[in-house]
Amino acid sequence: MAKPVLPSHIGFIPDGNRRWAQAHGLSKESGYDRGIQPGLDLFEQCQDLRVPEISIFCFTQDNTKRPSAQTKAFKSATVEFALQLSRREAALLVVGDSGSKQFPAELAPFLVRQGTGMKVNLLVNYGWNWDLDGMSNGGLRSHAISRMDLIVRWGGSSRLSGFLPVQSVYADLHIRPELWPEFQPSQFEQALAWFRKQDRTLGG
Amino acid sequence: MAKPVLPSHIGFIPDGNRRWAQAHGLSKESGYDRGIQPGLDLFEQCQDLRVPEISIFCFTQDNTKRPSAQTKAFKSATVEFALQLSRREAALLVVGDSGSKQFPAELAPFLVRQGTGMKVNLLVNYGWNWDLDGMSNGGLRSHAISRMDLIVRWGGSSRLSGFLPVQSVYADLHIRPELWPEFQPSQFEQALAWFRKQDRTLGG
Repeated sequence: MAKPVLPSHIGFIPDGNRRWAQAHGLSKESGYDRGIQPGLDLFEQCQDLRVPEISIFCFTQDNTKRPSAQTKAFKSATVEFALQLSRREAALLVVGDSGSKQFPAELAPFLVRQGTGMKVNLLVNYGWNWDLDGMSNGGLRSHAISRMDLIVRWGGSSRLSGFLPVQSVYADLHIRPELWPEFQPSQFEQALAWFRKQDRTLGG
Repeated sequence: MAKPVLPSHIGFIPDGNRRWAQAHGLSKESGYDRGIQPGLDLFEQCQDLRVPEISIFCFTQDNTKRPSAQTKAFKSATVEFALQLSRREAALLVVGDSGSKQFPAELAPFLVRQGTGMKVNLLVNYGWNWDLDGMSNGGLRSHAISRMDLIVRWGGSSRLSGFLPVQSVYADLHIRPELWPEFQPSQFEQALAWFRKQDRTLGG
């Protein structure tokens, strides 16, 4: 199978906000706010490149077990990021367990895709098991999200941490050592250059 | 969560047999046989280290779409490897679609775990979608396989290729540049040393 020049769908795991905050003498929860502008920059970079679809790991059900100062901070950063995106050229979809108190009410309108432009899927109060449990009742809960070609993770860890287990089955995983608030467009350019060198066989 | 000194369950993706054969002027299908002895060496290395459970990606339903000379060769190598293991101290389980003609009949007895010793799970005619489809009918078809801590892939590709999507959600993925027939115990030692440096948070 021919390798696409540009991935059709890219997943992003913006990890390392807490480590960044601590390294800068701040409380852990202060890191999340510093992830909003990088996210908007990355969104615009993908838009310029005409990437058809992106998915961003905002927070998981597991993450909500963290201390309340942190959960409050990452929820508020997620809401701010989503609302900022909704004012841009984006077809925005939020996927996650909206039946739980941990789901930010402000994002309920985006449980149905809103707007036009690049597809942007935000995982909000998402759980891999919550997602798969849908299969016992008709289908994946993330069924509106297509298969990913490339996943870029910041923060140095080489794992998926429950990020869309079905859509990630054939994705190439590119790990960035930088912490997410240190995002620079050149990092994503390097990820794309790396992707173009990968051989995509899809098991054939 | 404290990081274990040794992973409880390690997955192995032994990729690169065909590339190895071509690089040595052989036909692609000649590579699979050369993966058997490395597999037995790795098994013994895991046994010496007292790893409780390992899973090995033998072949998938996707793989069986390859030319028949290749499918014949990887099936025969898989059967030979499994029978060799069955004569060693291993609790052997084969997981895969045994209702298909692509499943080697010789391995049917191992659809129920046989033997005592380290748990060894072989994925044979396995498909990630075949596995997950079980969820619409009671549960994962690979339910007897536990969650993995570490996955080591040979052959340089940084992806899962459908390897146990549920058991891999929190696994650290370590990529080896060497092709599988070039396996040396030092490569696995390096993977374990790398694993000990990873931070395991399980989303917390």
